[in-house]
Amino acid sequence: MTTRIVELRRGVLKKNDELAAGLRASYAAAGVLVLNLVSSPGTGKTAFLEWTLRELRTRGARVAALVGDLETDNDARRLAASGAPVRQINTHGICHLDAEMIGKHLDGWEGVTLGGLDYLFIENVGNLVCPSSYDLGEKIRVALLSVTEGEDKPLKYPTMFNSADAAVITKMDIAEPCGFDRELALRNINEIRPGMRIFETSAKKGTGMDEWLAYLDEERKERGA
Amino acid sequence: MTTRIVELRRGVLKKNDELAAGLRASYAAAGVLVLNLVSSPGTGKTAFLEWTLRELRTRGARVAALVGDLETDNDARRLAASGAPVRQINTHGICHLDAEMIGKHLDGWEGVTLGGLDYLFIENVGNLVCPSSYDLGEKIRVALLSVTEGEDKPLKYPTMFNSADAAVITKMDIAEPCGFDRELALRNINEIRPGMRIFETSAKKGTGMDEWLAYLDEERKERGA
Repeated sequence: MTTRIVELRRGVLKKNDELAAGLRASYAAAGVLVLNLVSSPGTGKTAFLEWTLRELRTRGARVAALVGDLETDNDARRLAASGAPVRQINTHGICHLDAEMIGKHLDGWEGVTLGGLDYLFIENVGNLVCPSSYDLGEKIRVALLSVTEGEDKPLKYPTMFNSADAAVITKMDIAEPCGFDRELALRNINEIRPGMRIFETSAKKGTGMDEWLAYLDEERKERGA
Repeated sequence: MTTRIVELRRGVLKKNDELAAGLRASYAAAGVLVLNLVSSPGTGKTAFLEWTLRELRTRGARVAALVGDLETDNDARRLAASGAPVRQINTHGICHLDAEMIGKHLDGWEGVTLGGLDYLFIENVGNLVCPSSYDLGEKIRVALLSVTEGEDKPLKYPTMFNSADAAVITKMDIAEPCGFDRELALRNINEIRPGMRIFETSAKKGTGMDEWLAYLDEERKERGA
């Protein structure tokens, strides 16, 4: 039984990797920078992304977002307040987004084409384990971690942090009442992924957001979308 | 491919259900009340459990804990400070505990037998999705939710809250700086699982813990372990 499961899982991931490679080629051809945001439930992906979409739009960038949840379109409605086009993906029990879901939701997205975008953000299902195995063709995987979650999360969920290109610490405004140990958190992230870019942010206060936006701008220019 | 995956998943869950039924029978025969604690990463399962183990021991109860994480034995070391026997289960990438892992770790646990316990706590891997499908033979599944995570989590992860027997809200001491909307959280939990017992707690301050301990005591007596 175990052998069959492992083989089937390999097959599923191989199929996903092939679809993701196709997506990656489409993103590159369209010149859009695609980011995949992953974290626990409740880290504040949506608040962070809403702020990011709004600021990028203010600066004249063309942005859109796909957002994954098991159920509800709460997040899509929150993100739509930014004025950006947003499409909800309901996975109905599936614990992650996969490349096939992304492809399907990019097709026939009214008023949105990859060629018409500078940035596409994908907000994954809240889960620090399973989304790490599913490539969505993104250029940048961003692992978010809030000051409320405990500094040891990178050590306990190493695959997620190891597979990420950047880390965002959220809710810095409540670092003090949470007793957040900043040095320890930074050390643990660095232990799992040495040298990874880390942003210390508060979407509520706007802290650290200039640095984050400058990073997005650099990434679009330097690495090419 | 999809059909084969669904069938195989059914097979895996069926096998797990059979093993869980066996565990449930062993727990009942031994007279031990078994609880399965599930939540997001960082909700505070370990702090809540450490407090619970310590208090139960002070009151003369015989307690032990199994704790699941992808990697590290951080949680086992923290929980062992309570003085209770604790055994770490490292899943190495698997996103949940299953009945087979529990059975294996109960076997040959030095100095611990089910018959010698009043309570066995199982702290699951931090994940609001996947552990909901895996019965561990427990009598009570406890879904924890912290005030930092957003009041809509029960609506967004309905299977987890619907399959739980009790809900514990953690970190009530920082409800105010987090802008926690208590009424909304209670309403959302009740929408998914009407009438579920809900405990509002702070392990840091000891808030709500008397009610929780009284519940454990009642459950052991009324439902029979």
